[in-house]
Amino acid sequence: MKKLVGVDLGGTNGKVAVVTPVGRVLESVSFPASEVLTPKPMVKEIVSQILKIWKDGAGIKSIGIGVAGDVDNEHGVVRFSPNLNWRKVPLKKLVQDELRRMLPATKLSVTVENDANAAAWGAYHVDGKTKCKNLVVLTLGTGVGGGIVIDGKLYRGATGSAGEIGHMTVEPGGRLCNCGNRGCLEAYAGGSYMVREAKAAIKQGRTSKITEITPLRLQIAARQGDKLAQELWNEAGYYLGIAVAGVINLLNPELVVLAGGVSQAGKLLLVPVMAEIKKRAFETPARAAKVILSSSPTDLGLIGAALLAVP
Amino acid sequence: MKKLVGVDLGGTNGKVAVVTPVGRVLESVSFPASEVLTPKPMVKEIVSQILKIWKDGAGIKSIGIGVAGDVDNEHGVVRFSPNLNWRKVPLKKLVQDELRRMLPATKLSVTVENDANAAAWGAYHVDGKTKCKNLVVLTLGTGVGGGIVIDGKLYRGATGSAGEIGHMTVEPGGRLCNCGNRGCLEAYAGGSYMVREAKAAIKQGRTSKITEITPLRLQIAARQGDKLAQELWNEAGYYLGIAVAGVINLLNPELVVLAGGVSQAGKLLLVPVMAEIKKRAFETPARAAKVILSSSPTDLGLIGAALLAVP
Repeated sequence: MKKLVGVDLGGTNGKVAVVTPVGRVLESVSFPASEVLTPKPMVKEIVSQILKIWKDGAGIKSIGIGVAGDVDNEHGVVRFSPNLNWRKVPLKKLVQDELRRMLPATKLSVTVENDANAAAWGAYHVDGKTKCKNLVVLTLGTGVGGGIVIDGKLYRGATGSAGEIGHMTVEPGGRLCNCGNRGCLEAYAGGSYMVREAKAAIKQGRTSKITEITPLRLQIAARQGDKLAQELWNEAGYYLGIAVAGVINLLNPELVVLAGGVSQAGKLLLVPVMAEIKKRAFETPARAAKVILSSSPTDLGLIGAALLAVP
Repeated sequence: MKKLVGVDLGGTNGKVAVVTPVGRVLESVSFPASEVLTPKPMVKEIVSQILKIWKDGAGIKSIGIGVAGDVDNEHGVVRFSPNLNWRKVPLKKLVQDELRRMLPATKLSVTVENDANAAAWGAYHVDGKTKCKNLVVLTLGTGVGGGIVIDGKLYRGATGSAGEIGHMTVEPGGRLCNCGNRGCLEAYAGGSYMVREAKAAIKQGRTSKITEITPLRLQIAARQGDKLAQELWNEAGYYLGIAVAGVINLLNPELVVLAGGVSQAGKLLLVPVMAEIKKRAFETPARAAKVILSSSPTDLGLIGAALLAVP
């Protein structure tokens, strides 16, 4: 069986996996990315992780890397990654050079893509089984990303920046987002913002049983009846629903996939999301759009990166 | 020179034109649509207007019709048009039948398309000169419509409903829209809503020199310094800017075209629109997106319909 290599590069962790051509993860390994943040050590780390998971590297034909940030896919350059604190890093070239050093005999193609774009391509294969033509994915994690597949192809837009659903305004005068704007979807449905809100509410005297607040603990607390946690999920789902309804009216997709760690909140998000879609999207496109939780919520990025890299 | 026929069918007026293959209008005629609202008399009217403008109809090869409403382009059926009060009207077949009756010897292809989708195709040719790959048009009239060109092709989505930018939520708890939702872009930037707001404000005691309020008079009044009119344009531009910034973050297009009668307000809209884009869109896609007023603001629909119909 043909096997592919996918890499997902975030600001805290990296993950390398061997993936089948239909997007099944055969083996994967995570590594802390925070200690090797400058490009060259990071590239050495990535390649050594690849060789660890795929022994001597024999038979590797392509490597796809998804990176959180503004990526020039055509030239394989990370224009800007706030998470990694990188600017204009020629990641494709650096990885190719390191691979040539480690595996002189091997010919390898390397592809670099924005992580949410890669996730859209992963969702197209894993959740859509390549059967739908138009798909939108929302990656719900610390922040909120997104990617779009149009007519069975990854849609990148004019500069590879398409899909930034997390920074669509959903509440014009609303919460301040790290991007500097007010009322972005991310400021309500991003995990780090939910945690921040919970902490602020408790500091201001709200009673809550949650301690050591994380998005996962907010899920557990909400299911156990914690009012503050429930409010935060309802609010996140409300604004997520407004954004998804807008995307449905604008793009009329067959499939909307919720992915990322925060999407594992499941019904805590889906119930308010569906309520807003019912209220705000037109009937014809709303009926045409299936809204689902991804079956591989945290691996779509590396799966998609691996599949995008196939020469 | 090859000549094409385009038709734009609204709820109040219809317009028929002879168009060149690059989208120049050679001749056009308008007719009141409100008196012939049921499908069969409307079809007779359309065909008689076509023959009036193109004498004996000799040489007509294709006719494109843009209709305000939910259109099934594949089968040429108007699923629902609130403006015309039509449901499930097989417009393509009706027009073909009438044409065969009037011009038995002629073979003609007829295409039916949503009017804002047609406008997007018109803008792609007239404003984009087919040089940009990804374009979004907003048709600002009584209401707000939109259409999308992706990779040089009209993007219709799963059910031909794509492009409903006017019904993206820009103010969650905001003004009631005719669609039943709250806070749609249309409820702020649609001409009829602006007129309604102006009337309500005056009724509530706001002083203003505007009489017999129309969107055009609101433009004139604003340019003459009328405070109420200026506030309404600023508000419309503010929400339009929020929507366009969202579209830029989501679709990363090369071109955003403002069209329709209300777009002739020009700077009254463009200044607040650009301010919101600067505030709310990411730098890379914002720099990549040219935001312009259409050079054929009220003819894009029929131009696009004519060009879409080319067999």
